Amino acid sequence: MRQAGRSLPEYRAARGSGSILASIAQPDVAAEITLQPVRRYGVDAAILFSDIVVPVHAVGFGVEVEPGRGPVVAQPFRGAGDLARLRPLEPEVDLPYVAETVTLAVGELASFGVPLIGFAGAPFTVASYLVEGGPSRTFARTKSLMHTEPGLWAELLDRLADMSVAFLGAQVAAGAAAVQLFDSWAGCLSPSDYERFVLPTTRRVLAEIGRTGVPTILFGVGTGELLPLMATAGADVVGVDWRVPLHEARRRVGPGCAVQGNLDPALCLAPFDLVAAEARSVLEAAGAEPGHVFNLGHGVLPETDPGILGALVDLVHTEGRAGVSR
Amino acid sequence: MRQAGRSLPEYRAARGSGSILASIAQPDVAAEITLQPVRRYGVDAAILFSDIVVPVHAVGFGVEVEPGRGPVVAQPFRGAGDLARLRPLEPEVDLPYVAETVTLAVGELASFGVPLIGFAGAPFTVASYLVEGGPSRTFARTKSLMHTEPGLWAELLDRLADMSVAFLGAQVAAGAAAVQLFDSWAGCLSPSDYERFVLPTTRRVLAEIGRTGVPTILFGVGTGELLPLMATAGADVVGVDWRVPLHEARRRVGPGCAVQGNLDPALCLAPFDLVAAEARSVLEAAGAEPGHVFNLGHGVLPETDPGILGALVDLVHTEGRAGVSR
Repeated sequence: MRQAGRSLPEYRAARGSGSILASIAQPDVAAEITLQPVRRYGVDAAILFSDIVVPVHAVGFGVEVEPGRGPVVAQPFRGAGDLARLRPLEPEVDLPYVAETVTLAVGELASFGVPLIGFAGAPFTVASYLVEGGPSRTFARTKSLMHTEPGLWAELLDRLADMSVAFLGAQVAAGAAAVQLFDSWAGCLSPSDYERFVLPTTRRVLAEIGRTGVPTILFGVGTGELLPLMATAGADVVGVDWRVPLHEARRRVGPGCAVQGNLDPALCLAPFDLVAAEARSVLEAAGAEPGHVFNLGHGVLPETDPGILGALVDLVHTEGRAGVSR
Repeated sequence: MRQAGRSLPEYRAARGSGSILASIAQPDVAAEITLQPVRRYGVDAAILFSDIVVPVHAVGFGVEVEPGRGPVVAQPFRGAGDLARLRPLEPEVDLPYVAETVTLAVGELASFGVPLIGFAGAPFTVASYLVEGGPSRTFARTKSLMHTEPGLWAELLDRLADMSVAFLGAQVAAGAAAVQLFDSWAGCLSPSDYERFVLPTTRRVLAEIGRTGVPTILFGVGTGELLPLMATAGADVVGVDWRVPLHEARRRVGPGCAVQGNLDPALCLAPFDLVAAEARSVLEAAGAEPGHVFNLGHGVLPETDPGILGALVDLVHTEGRAGVSR
């Protein structure tokens, strides 16, 4: 359950009121936040506390994360001249705190017998912030750029892909046991645009990270029509949101990939009997075959009651382990 | 092309700087804005200049439309006590300006030989604004309400359905030749939630309006997984966004419904050769069978170049009329 920390009082205490990028840059704070959902809920994996703009911020592109708004870019990517602002990421120099955080977190997680999942933004979604200058509902500038300057678009994505590979590679080297690549907004694209302008680069990132031997997860939201393509990207697991029932997602993804999801996080604001009913529907739709990672279909909403999430984890451990979907 | 006016200088001149609800309440202004895309582009139909919150605003629920943000509700819908704030709509009393606008617009459209499409929000999407208090990314309060208080939810939707029926009925009586029901945000729902909490009311609205004999269009965005259900709602046409190729949309919708769409409006910001290529892809995916209304998959973006839209209409008229999809 990504962003599970956001709803926890101990998260807000550890984070304080500063920038999320400042918290990420403090290994003791970031490791503590990474651990919190494991301590509180007993989930089966931790995911690194990070943000998709950490690498581009670290090379000085000029990105901040505004509370309640998201990543904001002072000078958006407008043309070939901006490529120079995306020099290669040198993890040991540019963000040594990430490997330190991973090392600290992995050390603490050992006592729980729980692995750490590494975290990175996928090139398309990171590019969308750089091009739009901030969160977007339409992604109009991004789509315009990919269509009108496909060569420049490919160069932009290539640079971001190299950064994702370096970023994830540093996490794996420091002990991450799997990685998740967040292409959160890929669902805004038509299948043909995704296939032509995004999939090749995503494939390269997953292939290069896959060489380290760790399992890979490719995540997106609203990607129902993209699932058959995402299944060819080379990830071991493809994320699915609540819009696609898991049995249908499995059909689209095929036998080569596991699926992850897909409880609607908005439903976790309801009383637990309803959450339980929805969780059971997810387990049932996933079927008895292996290859399902129970999860929410998107991040935890900040206003979620931690008691509900705790009871949800218990339910999945009890009923999922009874053979429904593990 | 809904919201085609937004990108026109003559629209901005007619609208001025006041509230959109104020412009809608002035029949001469609203009729003029309704006509503008027909004059400028020669499109095959006009759609009434309106807003989905017009009926709830007219009965005094306390809704405003903030420029750049959307509908905002001073006191959101929180419980059964708020139902009384949604008294039945009496179109002649509450919004006489709508029938006047339709009458004016239909009169002017006659000289172009072009019909007017009536406009209303669907109960779910209107309810989401009343419950959330404004635009939402998660629809968490709305989903929570439908699950935790299904009886109250049904009553809320029933009242909004009655208002949509009365609102559209007044438009048809004044001369609208078809109606479009906007369930813009239904795509945030899982198929099972849509089927249980939304479809029955949508079906009732379409059945009651269908009795007037005019064709009905049911519109949504991100509704790929909902298309088979939407096809059973009773509309003659189902809208499709760019995420689902039209041949696949036709398969999901079945032979009983026409499809409308689905060029990505963001692509209309690109140079025309690209727009033309995309438009041809849409025509090709729609196939040679009848039952396709060429359209964008969502509203026109305000920054769109009117010259591009004009050339797009010409292309569809030339190549579509050549037998591809009309």
